[in-house]
Amino acid sequence: MTTGDRCEMPPIPLRSTPIKGFILDITGVLYNSMEGTDGIPIQGSAHAVNRLYSESRVRFLSNESTGTVGHVVGKLGRLGYTGIREEDVITPAPTAAEYCKRNGLRPHLLVHPGIRSVFDGLSQEDPNCVLIGDAEHAFTFKAINTAFRHLMKMKDPLLLSLGCGKFYQRTDGPCIDVGAFAEALKYSSGCRHVVIGKPRGDYFQTALDSMGLAKDEVVMIGDDIVSDVGGAMAFGMRAIQVRTGKWRSEWESHEIKPTLIADDLLSAVKACID
Amino acid sequence: MTTGDRCEMPPIPLRSTPIKGFILDITGVLYNSMEGTDGIPIQGSAHAVNRLYSESRVRFLSNESTGTVGHVVGKLGRLGYTGIREEDVITPAPTAAEYCKRNGLRPHLLVHPGIRSVFDGLSQEDPNCVLIGDAEHAFTFKAINTAFRHLMKMKDPLLLSLGCGKFYQRTDGPCIDVGAFAEALKYSSGCRHVVIGKPRGDYFQTALDSMGLAKDEVVMIGDDIVSDVGGAMAFGMRAIQVRTGKWRSEWESHEIKPTLIADDLLSAVKACID
Repeated sequence: MTTGDRCEMPPIPLRSTPIKGFILDITGVLYNSMEGTDGIPIQGSAHAVNRLYSESRVRFLSNESTGTVGHVVGKLGRLGYTGIREEDVITPAPTAAEYCKRNGLRPHLLVHPGIRSVFDGLSQEDPNCVLIGDAEHAFTFKAINTAFRHLMKMKDPLLLSLGCGKFYQRTDGPCIDVGAFAEALKYSSGCRHVVIGKPRGDYFQTALDSMGLAKDEVVMIGDDIVSDVGGAMAFGMRAIQVRTGKWRSEWESHEIKPTLIADDLLSAVKACID
Repeated sequence: MTTGDRCEMPPIPLRSTPIKGFILDITGVLYNSMEGTDGIPIQGSAHAVNRLYSESRVRFLSNESTGTVGHVVGKLGRLGYTGIREEDVITPAPTAAEYCKRNGLRPHLLVHPGIRSVFDGLSQEDPNCVLIGDAEHAFTFKAINTAFRHLMKMKDPLLLSLGCGKFYQRTDGPCIDVGAFAEALKYSSGCRHVVIGKPRGDYFQTALDSMGLAKDEVVMIGDDIVSDVGGAMAFGMRAIQVRTGKWRSEWESHEIKPTLIADDLLSAVKACID
């Protein structure tokens, strides 16, 4: 594929303004997923994370919706990322629970059993929205149809989804992600759809706020060209695409042009702070 | 909802040219679905079908993909539709098998167990397309993900779907249909999508050919505003929407304007031939 005479210059050069902080995606950047295990760490990433903790500010912004923040941090610890603190990790489920509370929403949950507890404080009777995460094997026909029927009963059907990922990469191959099931429900019910998580700007803002930094002081590093890179750049941040995780070589000519494409997290970090 | 100053006149008046034949949808027109049973016949429809067989020409054009034609005709017989012949019933699975054969396609099947046998004559090794029907409970996460992975491996990923229905109506409520799962796979894989069945014009043409009639001599009667009515009218036929099956009152102001909206099949037939 040729991009013809399209300008390929990145909109914001990497070193245009001083880099004071980093927002990192987790899966595909720190480790690769492997079914039935915690996954496999990506070489150099632990070293990169240690450098960021000692020389910069760093937050971890994930669309992971199969486990709680505690579960994510526990897994990272077992994979050798021993210094990551729970307060530095942001996942969409708590953000969604807060969103429901603020907007008087009573969600019908179509989520992974691992995150159900996050929504314990919310009324789920007489649902006025459906909340969908990466339910994985809980995506049965019956569960999808039940969610659909709830939407069909609502006067103004509303679907919240924890991210809108197309797929995630496991060592044995790509896996279809929550965004696909959100599209299915939208198609059949005609519902409104609100994404909680990347690529939404306010989700990046949450990470910026927790660092006390502005969007032009921070670089996003991720493996998803749409959720990580596209979301951050549309929000006005610089963003580095890594060639690990779900990376596809055809993305070299993707319509989204990252600030930089780096081989892995360590290379990305070096390009920013060496 | 108001349609403002939009013209609501039907494009082709019902009696504009002589009506020589009828194409009928089956589910929601002849009977309503009920889980675990053959369904419940819709009052008056058997009488209407008998009149059409004695006074006109008639074909049954369905997007049903959970059973073979033999299975459909057997069920209709048990519901009191004893005169319907297999050769008068068209379902998309045999059409899809023929399409695959003609185009050198080796489908990976994500279909209901009830129609697998229709594809027995086709090679399914090293698939170069995915073929999806209303798999119902066979829509497991694993099966959907397997289909997705096949698409991701193809150079020019192609999805065939047996119809693209949003939902079908059962007596206990609406059920999400194959179109939703096709959208899910499209979203995540970026595949091409070819629909076999309504609302495609060539599917209506199959029914016309088997009657030896032209499109302006035939009226379509169905309960799906998009697949039945929209498809037939876009193809240049007259089409009657019935208020049975999946009918929704909000469709009174749908952007697709049927030639006529009738309470049920019997009313529709009377409006045409009395």
